[in-house]
Amino acid sequence: MANNKLRVIPLGGLGEIGKNMMVLELPQDMIIVDAGLMFPKEEMLGVDLVIPDITYILQRRQKLRGIVITHGHEDHTGALPYVLRQLRAPVYCTRLTHGLISVKLKEHKLLGEADLRAVSAGEKVRLGAFQVEFVRVTHSIPDACALAIRTPIGTVIHTGDFKLDHTPVMGEPTDLSRLAELGREGVLLLLSDSTYAEMPGYTPSEQVVGEALDRIMATAPGRVIVATFASLISRMQQVIDAAYRNGRRVFITGRSMMDNSQMALEQGYLTAPQNVLAPIDQLAGMRPERVAVITTGSQGEPTSALVRMANQDHRQIRIVAGDTVVISASPIPGNEMLINLTIDNLCRLGAQVLNTRVANVHVRGHAAQEELKMMLSLVNPRFFVPQHGEYRHLAAHAVLAQAMGVAQENTFVLEDGDILELDGKRGRVAGRVPADHVYVDGLAVGLDQVVLRDRRHLASDGIVVVILAVDKHSGRLVGQPDVVARGFMDTDESGELLEKARRHVVRALKGADHHSEWGDVNTRVKDSLSQYLYQQTRRRPMILPLTVEV
Amino acid sequence: MANNKLRVIPLGGLGEIGKNMMVLELPQDMIIVDAGLMFPKEEMLGVDLVIPDITYILQRRQKLRGIVITHGHEDHTGALPYVLRQLRAPVYCTRLTHGLISVKLKEHKLLGEADLRAVSAGEKVRLGAFQVEFVRVTHSIPDACALAIRTPIGTVIHTGDFKLDHTPVMGEPTDLSRLAELGREGVLLLLSDSTYAEMPGYTPSEQVVGEALDRIMATAPGRVIVATFASLISRMQQVIDAAYRNGRRVFITGRSMMDNSQMALEQGYLTAPQNVLAPIDQLAGMRPERVAVITTGSQGEPTSALVRMANQDHRQIRIVAGDTVVISASPIPGNEMLINLTIDNLCRLGAQVLNTRVANVHVRGHAAQEELKMMLSLVNPRFFVPQHGEYRHLAAHAVLAQAMGVAQENTFVLEDGDILELDGKRGRVAGRVPADHVYVDGLAVGLDQVVLRDRRHLASDGIVVVILAVDKHSGRLVGQPDVVARGFMDTDESGELLEKARRHVVRALKGADHHSEWGDVNTRVKDSLSQYLYQQTRRRPMILPLTVEV
Repeated sequence: MANNKLRVIPLGGLGEIGKNMMVLELPQDMIIVDAGLMFPKEEMLGVDLVIPDITYILQRRQKLRGIVITHGHEDHTGALPYVLRQLRAPVYCTRLTHGLISVKLKEHKLLGEADLRAVSAGEKVRLGAFQVEFVRVTHSIPDACALAIRTPIGTVIHTGDFKLDHTPVMGEPTDLSRLAELGREGVLLLLSDSTYAEMPGYTPSEQVVGEALDRIMATAPGRVIVATFASLISRMQQVIDAAYRNGRRVFITGRSMMDNSQMALEQGYLTAPQNVLAPIDQLAGMRPERVAVITTGSQGEPTSALVRMANQDHRQIRIVAGDTVVISASPIPGNEMLINLTIDNLCRLGAQVLNTRVANVHVRGHAAQEELKMMLSLVNPRFFVPQHGEYRHLAAHAVLAQAMGVAQENTFVLEDGDILELDGKRGRVAGRVPADHVYVDGLAVGLDQVVLRDRRHLASDGIVVVILAVDKHSGRLVGQPDVVARGFMDTDESGELLEKARRHVVRALKGADHHSEWGDVNTRVKDSLSQYLYQQTRRRPMILPLTVEV
Repeated sequence: MANNKLRVIPLGGLGEIGKNMMVLELPQDMIIVDAGLMFPKEEMLGVDLVIPDITYILQRRQKLRGIVITHGHEDHTGALPYVLRQLRAPVYCTRLTHGLISVKLKEHKLLGEADLRAVSAGEKVRLGAFQVEFVRVTHSIPDACALAIRTPIGTVIHTGDFKLDHTPVMGEPTDLSRLAELGREGVLLLLSDSTYAEMPGYTPSEQVVGEALDRIMATAPGRVIVATFASLISRMQQVIDAAYRNGRRVFITGRSMMDNSQMALEQGYLTAPQNVLAPIDQLAGMRPERVAVITTGSQGEPTSALVRMANQDHRQIRIVAGDTVVISASPIPGNEMLINLTIDNLCRLGAQVLNTRVANVHVRGHAAQEELKMMLSLVNPRFFVPQHGEYRHLAAHAVLAQAMGVAQENTFVLEDGDILELDGKRGRVAGRVPADHVYVDGLAVGLDQVVLRDRRHLASDGIVVVILAVDKHSGRLVGQPDVVARGFMDTDESGELLEKARRHVVRALKGADHHSEWGDVNTRVKDSLSQYLYQQTRRRPMILPLTVEV
């Protein structure tokens, strides 16, 4: 790598949402910004979660000076337990992020060996030839930061996730003045959050939500149950505040919600007047209009506390007429069906359900177009890379940047794995590094496409196993083949068909009774049986011929 | 069934969206309103489509006087090919609906035997003790009707799907005057569309879409490619009109779009000035700004024409920079991911993509709250049943009805299978009939839960097959068991684990070598291997032990 070059390599989050990770590389030094996870999509059958491919980093691990985390959301931190098992590097982040990461690393029994370092907004950290300054931004979690990364080639601003909320619930607003100062000094490259680049106008302030919650707590005839993300500490604070103002006690349910609120209380990121918070076992006997509950389950997650309530399966809370359930979150694409099912079940039990479609009970955590333009205007970068978003978001953000004066040849719509190489004057995409999804399934990290393809095949039409017994001396078929199916068709119908299939296999194997020919027996059984079953049923189960030597 | 009773039994569409079907039953006569299908949800692995359970109807088939269809959408007509195979009855519907149903029945080779009868809005049909009058309503398909069903107990109004569009693209607006007249005469029961009962205000007129399409056709620098539902005949008309006004020729692609447009042209429901429509093989060589394309794929359906374009896999159309793609449809819940993927791929190829989030290129086909109130106000029913909707929509609609003066005890939020019994004065839920989903998979109608459960199991962790060879005379294990896996874990890792699993099976079977004990061998192998593999991998594949007698 030439001496006057900076490489910027997204390993996650560009082209698909989630598992954010960006590598910045100089000739002698390398840093990683964020190490997030992605929740599996529908077609990733059986996968628990998805993390970035860090092959490129592992090949240059001696250059790695540190991992810098912008904020405590899982799509920016969740891959750390897997990454830190493969490489040792200090992790720099603000205090709340430090707390949230510690909770996760503890679960993974990695807290002891990890080198976690808390930094405050405004602080600078030297990492080899990089100097990283943490700059306060607002987002849907407190203690979020953008990064001003000084390199010998020029300054890079990485916004992390942000919006411009002038009245955030807690913490301070985005440090626009520092961003403007950096802009005046000259910024080489801006990497900016594109999640809502398609959305015109401004994202409303969190204050709007506080007002809505206040009204609901004041007027609801019975209990108010608020479901939100476990990491949305500021939303918990708003619920506690609104409950307190309206004479309600607050009960927290859901494991991750309890863990995070505990940590945030200890760290001072969540505050509650005395006697407002109470353990859930004291809920029984409370007058309903004196009760507020904070719970997990805003995405309809099957094992979450809210879904257990909806299924009449929660230990302490039975939903009754008069209960008001507030879903204080937007649906993550793909979760709509589960969320709707949960709402339906809550309605069936008599609850009134309020969500963003009918009340201002949630605002987005990301900047809309006017805020993105403000960022571009303040930072005034020479080069621009839209980050965090699906391709259409990145493309929309690039259009905004050009409208704000970034030269077209200096705007790079990258996707994960692209190498952007800058020399201070020009930029070019200089190749690609591995950046496929890495699937975590159970204890295994990494699952190949064959396994997923097989699962999809099994999922759609099931499996038919054909067992052939072969004499190991003569190489001849012994007895009759056996045919067994699972997930293929109803058992009461399948008996006759499978018997016919068995006879079909016998016919297909006529003449193949010598050792030398067993090689193609599997193929023969597969092809002819597959064709036969498709004719009979219009389904294509996986065919698995197994030979037993006896 | 007592003489003065009317039974109203929803078999589909109440509590879940889709597969609409309503049974109206008098002591001597019965009619069915609509016979729709539902597209399978995510968890219905491998299922092609879902239809209502008509067991209750089949048990009383001698009473069935006819099937009445409100409009030509598949969620109201799509079960007909399956229903008509099981029972013979005349099918009454308007002319366009007749055309669309004919296309479907032809595909199923059922057109010859079906007794399809075309009726015009305003006409009345006698069906035993029922008299059914077709009343014009507006919806996102022309020739849609509500039904005024006179019975000895009183008049029932079934709205079908509707909105109150005063400037529809084609056909006439909703016959409010006739509905008002019926209301003045006295209506016993209103069954009304609840799909958008949560939406405040009014649904905009289709005219809004016409205007947006006009602007796009006028200003787009290259080709305009509009994706919409194949049944949305009025949208096709709007595209043709806007293209014609802006000097563009129209090419239609996608099989169902071509079939339906052909039928609608023949029936006069779609009109095009001469030389506007052209076959797609004439597209090559046309100047881009002279081209408009109508295509399937608005839901990201994997084999649709738009998705093939997005994947560079369409025979006649390669997407290039300058193309404008308009998604003129709202996402059906559950399809968001596929649609977004399609948009991303189109953006990657350089197309500009417009959808409802960024332009007025689609309006809903269903009434919002103010229109629903208008319907309640005109019809002024004694009893009210919200229909077509998930539970929360039905519940919201019931709240509206009570606000409009329907007595609470006369409002029935039913779900599929509930029997509502009315005697003219009082109503009560008098029991339940079978109303589960009936799954269509390949050639089979009906698929039991075991098959779906097995598919879900196979989908999440794959399958491990254990083959045990047993001497049929001595009942002893012959040789070593064999262990084979599919969809379980990566092949390069699995070899060693499966070898260990094999040894584990051998140990688990120690002592079980007598015939008498083979009964529990399967259980033993399953339990111990399942536990062992979970310990080793945290996955729970399906374990399938197979015994081969040799």
